[in-house]
Amino acid sequence: MAATSWREWRTTDAAERLRAPGPDDDKYSRGVLGVVTGSHEYPGAALLAVEAAMRAGAGMVRYTGPRPVRALVLARCPEVVTVGGRVQAWLLGSGIDPARRSFVLTGELEHALASRVPVVLDAGGLDLVGTHTAPTVITPHARELATLLADREVRTSVEEVRADPRAWAERAAHELGVVVLLKGAVTCIADPDGAAITVTAPTHRLATAGSGDVLGGILGALVASAHEELASDAHALAPLAATAALLHGRAAELAVAANGGGPITAPDISARVPHAIGELLG
Amino acid sequence: MAATSWREWRTTDAAERLRAPGPDDDKYSRGVLGVVTGSHEYPGAALLAVEAAMRAGAGMVRYTGPRPVRALVLARCPEVVTVGGRVQAWLLGSGIDPARRSFVLTGELEHALASRVPVVLDAGGLDLVGTHTAPTVITPHARELATLLADREVRTSVEEVRADPRAWAERAAHELGVVVLLKGAVTCIADPDGAAITVTAPTHRLATAGSGDVLGGILGALVASAHEELASDAHALAPLAATAALLHGRAAELAVAANGGGPITAPDISARVPHAIGELLG
Amino acid sequence: MAATSWREWRTTDAAERLRAPGPDDDKYSRGVLGVVTGSHEYPGAALLAVEAAMRAGAGMVRYTGPRPVRALVLARCPEVVTVGGRVQAWLLGSGIDPARRSFVLTGELEHALASRVPVVLDAGGLDLVGTHTAPTVITPHARELATLLADREVRTSVEEVRADPRAWAERAAHELGVVVLLKGAVTCIADPDGAAITVTAPTHRLATAGSGDVLGGILGALVASAHEELASDAHALAPLAATAALLHGRAAELAVAANGGGPITAPDISARVPHAIGELLG
Amino acid sequence: MAATSWREWRTTDAAERLRAPGPDDDKYSRGVLGVVTGSHEYPGAALLAVEAAMRAGAGMVRYTGPRPVRALVLARCPEVVTVGGRVQAWLLGSGIDPARRSFVLTGELEHALASRVPVVLDAGGLDLVGTHTAPTVITPHARELATLLADREVRTSVEEVRADPRAWAERAAHELGVVVLLKGAVTCIADPDGAAITVTAPTHRLATAGSGDVLGGILGALVASAHEELASDAHALAPLAATAALLHGRAAELAVAANGGGPITAPDISARVPHAIGELLG
Repeated sequence: MAATSWREWRTTDAAERLRAPGPDDDKYSRGVLGVVTGSHEYPGAALLAVEAAMRAGAGMVRYTGPRPVRALVLARCPEVVTVGGRVQAWLLGSGIDPARRSFVLTGELEHALASRVPVVLDAGGLDLVGTHTAPTVITPHARELATLLADREVRTSVEEVRADPRAWAERAAHELGVVVLLKGAVTCIADPDGAAITVTAPTHRLATAGSGDVLGGILGALVASAHEELASDAHALAPLAATAALLHGRAAELAVAANGGGPITAPDISARVPHAIGELLG
Repeated sequence: MAATSWREWRTTDAAERLRAPGPDDDKYSRGVLGVVTGSHEYPGAALLAVEAAMRAGAGMVRYTGPRPVRALVLARCPEVVTVGGRVQAWLLGSGIDPARRSFVLTGELEHALASRVPVVLDAGGLDLVGTHTAPTVITPHARELATLLADREVRTSVEEVRADPRAWAERAAHELGVVVLLKGAVTCIADPDGAAITVTAPTHRLATAGSGDVLGGILGALVASAHEELASDAHALAPLAATAALLHGRAAELAVAANGGGPITAPDISARVPHAIGELLG
Repeated sequence: MAATSWREWRTTDAAERLRAPGPDDDKYSRGVLGVVTGSHEYPGAALLAVEAAMRAGAGMVRYTGPRPVRALVLARCPEVVTVGGRVQAWLLGSGIDPARRSFVLTGELEHALASRVPVVLDAGGLDLVGTHTAPTVITPHARELATLLADREVRTSVEEVRADPRAWAERAAHELGVVVLLKGAVTCIADPDGAAITVTAPTHRLATAGSGDVLGGILGALVASAHEELASDAHALAPLAATAALLHGRAAELAVAANGGGPITAPDISARVPHAIGELLG
Repeated sequence: MAATSWREWRTTDAAERLRAPGPDDDKYSRGVLGVVTGSHEYPGAALLAVEAAMRAGAGMVRYTGPRPVRALVLARCPEVVTVGGRVQAWLLGSGIDPARRSFVLTGELEHALASRVPVVLDAGGLDLVGTHTAPTVITPHARELATLLADREVRTSVEEVRADPRAWAERAAHELGVVVLLKGAVTCIADPDGAAITVTAPTHRLATAGSGDVLGGILGALVASAHEELASDAHALAPLAATAALLHGRAAELAVAANGGGPITAPDISARVPHAIGELLG
């Protein structure tokens, strides 16, 4: 379909995109991530994303979901702040059923999207693409991308997307005007201006329940950390997305090793994100 | 009593039955396990089984038990999905008092049993054997098997079962038409077509509260992972059951070593399941 | 005051009192401990004791305290059973305010004490000494022992007990007709028939909040494991109490080492109990 | 602004301020810390402070905040006592919104401040400085100190405080009559009598959400441990504050190493406090 030149993201590329905190940093300058994910039905998505964001170096995470979900988040991550306030980036959508978004939740999502800070949109928030102008990266898997494009009257199917993920990521980026991170064994990142990056998963054990929520958290943290750069350079978003995918894969690989070569769970991946970052920073 | 030739399951036998995920796998193709276990009275059974299933490599676990139990499950395993949906195998019965099954719970069990995907039946679900035709493995201990056979008007006692577990496992498999995994220091697996496998526990510390729930979770994950093979070859069930028992024992042995040779708890066993699988996959 | 010959309990003495599970053991034969400790005001005592009992090798723990405490117990130890049933030993009293024992709780304590299986009585249950005839060990600290003796019209004070713990442990054993384990930097164990054993704490970091609850759990597990021997030989109780104190101290020492020589918490002690037992079993 | 001679606190200075428990210590003599922090809005602050205090060697922590916060505290630290009683030091204020202090909470804070035992005042309790005469250390960051001084009609701004933290810490100590620990990449400790100590953070990863709550917990534990010395020598407070800051930084450095050089969270810092103390005690 497309003739774009794709490049595989390397460790050295990723290392250039990470920012270690300096002497003048505080938790605010390091980046505050606002998270609107999870629901009574799917609380786990919030827990996984929030934990991964903290592990990936967010200065602070604000989580303001339903009360019982907040309690679960705090039991796991007591450092999370569960009241609203200023944020430098948003992570929206996972663990939310778009067909059952309440009035309050819809208001929160619209508030976030209107705030003009960079946004990571996933799963149950994907249909909101195009309702705002802030720098945005979406993180669908093949089925979600096919649905999203069908909603925009682009004919495709999950089989077609799977057969040529590079082309469909690129097409979606152009159609939707946002950075697209299409998840898969080879993750494809495309932006509307032509950036085209692949990240090949180093372990197939990455395909486990909640893995995508962890990726969302990592990416949210990186975007929050880079908020100053992103304000002046929207092209920085695709390389950040690629860096998140690379860290996600490397953390999974480290988790497999820590588990003696056996299965891993999403929290196992989260637990190794700091080590993956530490390696990159050398 | 019987003259069947029993074989002890070896590490190499087990290794052949494990499937590592490949590039085309996602969490659904790796196998989704539906879990209907645990209750207000016995919530722990659900926590242990669900955690063990994730540790054993289930692509996803769906747990739809009572609300407070779901909250406990999510606090421990945020990657678990607590709403219904398509599954490739069921784990039913542990932590449920058969004398106090509610109308809703009975409906859920019947729904699961009617779904024609493979079923692992344990403890409080054992009386449902014979009410469905899906490939089934039951996992009783000696007392439960004696009760189950007595209910079918087969005269026996817990003492008789303990005295000759091989014979009684075989007899039960024939009477009930399902694969029988009879738990004990030597676990005996028999299927109606004559498969007869023993798995000798490598440590007597395996006999600890909740240990059987962990075994159920491991077996559930293996069955969900093998759902495609099982659809065409029901004979694959007994070897999977033997493999689960072997992994359970080896994980316990690794846990004892991690605890300096001292006592272990059921969660300690769960924590080592990935390492036991990693060893087998070599 | 007394001329009894006291002996310091050695590692080899303790090793003789431990029983590793054998091929014929199941969780019931290994010993079921019933725990009636903790309350709305002091839930933590239950959590610590239950966890320590499992770590010390109880086959099963039954905990039937207040509902919110049960939820906390299960979140920490999903292998615990929270409904009543047969037990082989009881641990009673810690985390209970004797002045605020409810009607239900009083009934539960009386039921336990009437059941004739061995009993470990601590803290808020100490006043019940003498209301039953089952083999009993009490585990007071100096202040509790002084109060307990004062209630029996034995004149003493916490200062006097601290000044001569050996003598007062012995005196209390005679007055009360039970085994007395008097906690301190040197723990003194005395039984009415003249057993007199000391256990010197290997680290002063043992003196931390909840440490006594952990000791209670260890002792409860050992008593449950030895229930058969105790049925025929009440003299076995004092050596078991000394063994529990020695394991408690050694686990604390291992925890200090694991913490780089720094402070430890009660759960840190619990976490090392298996290793302390493993060492003894060699 | 000032010509005071500041000294950088060294490991050897800190080591002299730590007290290892001795044979006559029990949990009470080691120091009981009363904690009034956290709220329905900000429960995490309490969890982090309480956990850090236990990790830093408090003999016991009493936490009496809102019921749901107590439940979260107990799930994490079952050794914490959640009813009132005698304490040897107080930690007050973090996780409390000063504009929304309830009648009950205000009463608790006033009760604590009137009790004449040493006080660590942080965040939402800083406005209470000057309402009591007990030995006090406050732990503001630059913005909080600027606000606090502005409330006392001292003209300054967060920028001015950041530009010359030494001078403003000293000024505040004189104006307010308390020990001031001004948090930053270089933490400045000043007391009204001229003590002037700096502690340079060994890692910029210390700037993470909840990090200040962990510092509060460490300092609270040190103050409770030193309660006897503090009763006779108020000058001991500034060196203790410097020691807490040094331990906090060293624990963060150890946590970064444990995380492979990558990001850390506040609980990661807490987890390494024992090791930092162990190192100092050598």
